[in-house]
Amino acid sequence: MSGRIEIYDTTLRDGVQSEDISLSLDDKLSIITRLDQLGIHYIEAGWPGANPKDERLFTKIRSLHVSQSRIMAFGSTCRPGGLPENDRLIKSIVSAKPHGVTIFGKSWDAHVKGEGGLGCSLDENLRMIRDTVAFLRKSFPIVFFDAEHFFDGFKANREYAMASLDAAVKGGASRVVLCDTNGGAIPSEVSEIVGFIAKKRSIPLGIHCHNDSELAVANTLCAVQAGADHVHGTINGVGERCGNTNLCSIIPVLSIKLGYETIARDKLRMLSDTSRFFDEIANLLHNKHQPYVGESAFAHKGGIHVSAVMGDPATYEHISPEVVGNQRKVIVSEHSGKSNIVYKAREFNIDLSKDDTAANEIVKIIKDLENCGFQFEGADASLELLMKKAMNQHVRSFRLKGFRVNTERRSDDTDPVSEATIMIEVDGNVEHTAAMGNGPVNALDKALRKALQKFYPSIQEVELLDYKVRVISSRSGTESVVRVLIESGDKKDHWYTVGVSSNILEASWMALVDSMDYKLYKDSLKDSVRKKVR
Amino acid sequence: MSGRIEIYDTTLRDGVQSEDISLSLDDKLSIITRLDQLGIHYIEAGWPGANPKDERLFTKIRSLHVSQSRIMAFGSTCRPGGLPENDRLIKSIVSAKPHGVTIFGKSWDAHVKGEGGLGCSLDENLRMIRDTVAFLRKSFPIVFFDAEHFFDGFKANREYAMASLDAAVKGGASRVVLCDTNGGAIPSEVSEIVGFIAKKRSIPLGIHCHNDSELAVANTLCAVQAGADHVHGTINGVGERCGNTNLCSIIPVLSIKLGYETIARDKLRMLSDTSRFFDEIANLLHNKHQPYVGESAFAHKGGIHVSAVMGDPATYEHISPEVVGNQRKVIVSEHSGKSNIVYKAREFNIDLSKDDTAANEIVKIIKDLENCGFQFEGADASLELLMKKAMNQHVRSFRLKGFRVNTERRSDDTDPVSEATIMIEVDGNVEHTAAMGNGPVNALDKALRKALQKFYPSIQEVELLDYKVRVISSRSGTESVVRVLIESGDKKDHWYTVGVSSNILEASWMALVDSMDYKLYKDSLKDSVRKKVR
Repeated sequence: MSGRIEIYDTTLRDGVQSEDISLSLDDKLSIITRLDQLGIHYIEAGWPGANPKDERLFTKIRSLHVSQSRIMAFGSTCRPGGLPENDRLIKSIVSAKPHGVTIFGKSWDAHVKGEGGLGCSLDENLRMIRDTVAFLRKSFPIVFFDAEHFFDGFKANREYAMASLDAAVKGGASRVVLCDTNGGAIPSEVSEIVGFIAKKRSIPLGIHCHNDSELAVANTLCAVQAGADHVHGTINGVGERCGNTNLCSIIPVLSIKLGYETIARDKLRMLSDTSRFFDEIANLLHNKHQPYVGESAFAHKGGIHVSAVMGDPATYEHISPEVVGNQRKVIVSEHSGKSNIVYKAREFNIDLSKDDTAANEIVKIIKDLENCGFQFEGADASLELLMKKAMNQHVRSFRLKGFRVNTERRSDDTDPVSEATIMIEVDGNVEHTAAMGNGPVNALDKALRKALQKFYPSIQEVELLDYKVRVISSRSGTESVVRVLIESGDKKDHWYTVGVSSNILEASWMALVDSMDYKLYKDSLKDSVRKKVR
Repeated sequence: MSGRIEIYDTTLRDGVQSEDISLSLDDKLSIITRLDQLGIHYIEAGWPGANPKDERLFTKIRSLHVSQSRIMAFGSTCRPGGLPENDRLIKSIVSAKPHGVTIFGKSWDAHVKGEGGLGCSLDENLRMIRDTVAFLRKSFPIVFFDAEHFFDGFKANREYAMASLDAAVKGGASRVVLCDTNGGAIPSEVSEIVGFIAKKRSIPLGIHCHNDSELAVANTLCAVQAGADHVHGTINGVGERCGNTNLCSIIPVLSIKLGYETIARDKLRMLSDTSRFFDEIANLLHNKHQPYVGESAFAHKGGIHVSAVMGDPATYEHISPEVVGNQRKVIVSEHSGKSNIVYKAREFNIDLSKDDTAANEIVKIIKDLENCGFQFEGADASLELLMKKAMNQHVRSFRLKGFRVNTERRSDDTDPVSEATIMIEVDGNVEHTAAMGNGPVNALDKALRKALQKFYPSIQEVELLDYKVRVISSRSGTESVVRVLIESGDKKDHWYTVGVSSNILEASWMALVDSMDYKLYKDSLKDSVRKKVR
């Protein structure tokens, strides 16, 4: 099999229908940039008119450097009895100035006539489809028609479903997209129906599936095998109810398993990163069991599997993980734990061999901390400091003599005020200071920097870029243990630190202290390098 | 289509290969009881011999009242050059006294000869399969043969893969199960290969798939349509790497969509509960987007959808949620219109029609709050209070005169201490009190309850079950806006409340206040109902 399949991403339109996802304008812009880099052919950015935020988004997109993708606007046909040129929503689409437009309309007779449907005649619906497509074709070279509920419609009234496609074609649609809106179709019927249409009509076909039977990827695949050459989906399969077709699965299935041309071969390597980036932006937990791109998609538990995989990966891996930018994961035993540590130390430029007693010590400390809820996978700076401390090569840059954080609210109508006081000691000198903040953590953060700046002026360069709280043990209400992850940066680097405690202030404190400490440690390394160079 | 399909659960054997799952003996027994109640035909309980815990499990199972399911033990063929009667592992299977046995063996020539393989001749592998099955048939009426890596083997050396099946048949196997061990197969090839075998051989066929391409359910379905009548899978699709075929999806697909007989029709209603029960026992987060059984599998968000679903559910639901023991969920969000609000109001027993001015007011309040970061999708109790307030039917049960929360840490070596003071007013009476806590939020929580209990003794019944923090705008370090979600419960109900602020204490306060207020509101409703009844 071969041929080119167009990939159409609807994460920002159908994907955000998922109840867990709420993206800011900046989030959406950064996702569009990623999708463009990945080489996705079409990006459906939103529905201008229906949502004022989406109108602003389209304005912003125009100043974005989108180089590979076509930006699409989504919209509905005009209303019964109305003309597209007088339709406020359709006019908004035109003013949004996308590269192209996807218009949805009804293909299921029950949705035209029935209760909760359009309440117009079957012919009027066809007129609306035809007129809307024709009107938009005057302004846009690309107009796709999403045939909503197509498979249900086809099963209920085949003639009418086909007539809705014909109406779009008469209007000048560049393509019709068959939608399994309720997600109820199964592969054998998708093959049959798409095959039937592909034989009867010459118009290019697209497929848009939902995952309500855990069959979205399979239905999409069967549609392609039956003649569709345009595939809708979302990153990580997010979307309403059970989600949409997962682009992170269907792209590798089509490209690697079946040899279709989708995104460029070398861009496939960006899939795992794109998948994780999206969850990070959307603040979702990345599913490590996700096919192709999950952390554990190529995980092997010790023993026979591991030695076999080392000998010939193909015996236990269906594809090579590198092709999709993922990696093999060998789940650690006591011994491979040490090799990981040594591997990490090398990455940090720390001189540590497997036979050093410190290596055992570090493995033990990490295991103990992980039992308490720490995770160092996203907190390299904390891990590096931990290693240096275990090797007696690092002493913290200050001693805490005490802090106090106070949040006060005087009535129902006033805002709360947070204040922190702190006392630290550096080489026998004590600094005692205070700061106000936007919440207790922010106050403590500000007070600590203020105190440290007296001794270490470079602390001023540190910016806190991200602050994340995750409840780990959730079964004890407000006493839950929380993990705080902080991303910090200065003019040159970014680094990540972690803290865990049942007291959110204490967890934040740990991560803050590691962040400041790491900045000073990093600066001292540069000084010593500088000294050596001299 | 019709006919009976056997369901074979391997959650306790292949499922526990997932790195996240670790089950105690009691956990396993309670899962077996559930699977038996569900009417699963075969339950693979473990691998006696390979795992001493599994031997104890089989002993315990004998005193369990398993009435519908057959308990299966799993094991491997004897070793090269060895006889099954002398094999320690195979003897352990016999002593475990299951109802039947499933034996796996190699079907892929590369795994017999290759590096990391058995290291014996191809014929010797066939001898091992035949002898092991024959030996076990003396003790057990049911012996299944799992043909490992069958699809890869078939593609590499069709003759040898078929010979491995023949060896099992010669040994007396009741059934051969075709395994896609690496999870790399796609539906079209599964259809073709299973169809080929079904035509050639009269032995009953089973199918065992992995989800590495997000196609396990589809591959299983295609195998059934091509002639297999026995399906392996796990609850929620748990398993190594990307997991196994998800029984919670394949059972409804086969039963509801295609009319096959799987588990009894009335038992289908237990699917959602079984799925959630398993995650609870295994301490996994239940995936609310899971097809059929997820909390959001039948969720409706958009305004148009909701009014249509209220008219005719079939227009937006591929099956009726009750059939699998699930329920419809209407989500209120920025995408939602007045119909969602009205539907929700009906759920809350609030009398609100689309034409009430309050309905517009509520939609506006919700949109504004959502712009600030609120989400009511997971916070029904906050939503209900908001509606009642907008309709002037609710006044908060107390007034805040002020609170102060103090967290103090005296040195590097001591733990921090959190204390809250609070002053509230109820009907002109003031209560001023204080409490210590495990962190500032916990201290504030305790102080508020303590103050409220003076006026409302029933507050003592409230338990805080879960506390979740999510950073919403993450680009500004410790000043980030956070959303707090709280789950509370008393002896009868559970409810969810939400708060948003850049100050985490303020956000927590909002959610706590709504929680307490909801409890009192709920109690007052019962009182008025009681009064009416009198």
